Amino acid sequence: MKRAVVLLSGGLDSSTTLYLAKSRGFDCRALIFDYGQRHKREVESAKKIARAAKCPFKVIKIDLPWKGSSLLDKKIKLTAQSSQPKATIPLTYVPARNIIFLSFALSYAEAIKAQKIFIGANAIDYSGYPDCRPEFYRAFNIASKRGTKAGAQGKAIKIETPLINKTKAEIVRLGKKLGVPFAMTWSCYKGGKKPCGVCESCRLRAKGFREAGVNDPPLRRWRASK
Amino acid sequence: MKRAVVLLSGGLDSSTTLYLAKSRGFDCRALIFDYGQRHKREVESAKKIARAAKCPFKVIKIDLPWKGSSLLDKKIKLTAQSSQPKATIPLTYVPARNIIFLSFALSYAEAIKAQKIFIGANAIDYSGYPDCRPEFYRAFNIASKRGTKAGAQGKAIKIETPLINKTKAEIVRLGKKLGVPFAMTWSCYKGGKKPCGVCESCRLRAKGFREAGVNDPPLRRWRASK
Repeated sequence: MKRAVVLLSGGLDSSTTLYLAKSRGFDCRALIFDYGQRHKREVESAKKIARAAKCPFKVIKIDLPWKGSSLLDKKIKLTAQSSQPKATIPLTYVPARNIIFLSFALSYAEAIKAQKIFIGANAIDYSGYPDCRPEFYRAFNIASKRGTKAGAQGKAIKIETPLINKTKAEIVRLGKKLGVPFAMTWSCYKGGKKPCGVCESCRLRAKGFREAGVNDPPLRRWRASK
Repeated sequence: MKRAVVLLSGGLDSSTTLYLAKSRGFDCRALIFDYGQRHKREVESAKKIARAAKCPFKVIKIDLPWKGSSLLDKKIKLTAQSSQPKATIPLTYVPARNIIFLSFALSYAEAIKAQKIFIGANAIDYSGYPDCRPEFYRAFNIASKRGTKAGAQGKAIKIETPLINKTKAEIVRLGKKLGVPFAMTWSCYKGGKKPCGVCESCRLRAKGFREAGVNDPPLRRWRASK
């Protein structure tokens, strides 16, 4: 059976990616990162989703002794993306985060002889993070081919980004079709008891559900309780 | 002042790289990795060398829940490289290790606004690790340019590999000229009280000192005590 490592954050995109990789016949292994994120709550969501998908998972704890991001440093205020100029990379950008995640995924994939790594990066309805763009993944695939034993032996582990060119609405529709348990997913950067509805991640999620004409269970609950 | 992150393992190559980066006028910050290596002793060497070079350092603890290498898994026997076919990547290869180290270095470099990352990779007198070859660093530099905020803003952090085309003897001579405290460095993979003199790392080191006509202080002590 083909084997794949899936990066799972517990949000809409990575959960849909996991279900998509499974639907393509991969024996999936999820990696979940506990990296000091403000919304550590997503780690619990990710575990629940992996269990729901019957996907074995590992939680990797990373202790970055530097910050440089409002997702890591509570002293930096979380701003809504819409309040920033459009061309600006938001303060929620975590330095080299996806590169760190991918490097662990590569190591894991080599150790368990997986052929693919799936990541739910998206460059359409996104925050402008450079490590979500297709040109980055193309370059990283070349680096990983040249810098790993698997690659040197002609069995390069390929990073797959199946959502990269989809709108958030398309992702919601795909997730619905695949049976992603939306009610378990967590997107809000604030990581409170309920989604804040204001941060860039909440806004992008809401836009996707609205445009897809699908109800978003957690947000609906939150709205009803207000 | 120009700032650089230096990957410091505590061995001959990375220590020489640190002294070289300093001699080029960089304000250096060392990253030392405690990743479950068999020769954890090198972490202590690295700290001593950073202190000797008056270089602030951070120790990053990485807990890889998979093995796949004789450097991580004591159940796999450490073999001398010379006992393996020359074209084979040795069992000491740690899956995607340098990619993991570089990803942390990139994150740190972005957070502290460093312009360069120095790594003592060498592709001449080496063990055949794919992540020590120049073609890998060229590709990783492109990925890092495309996948980081610094790169997207035209201030890409460049990985420098100043030793990549040097023989071990040339590295020893350079280290001697720069005043690298050889007696503090540690290379042996076995990580015992004294270097084993047999593993591939000990052999490469001994070859370098022999060919450079320089005495290697720790090995000399060890030999004297036998």
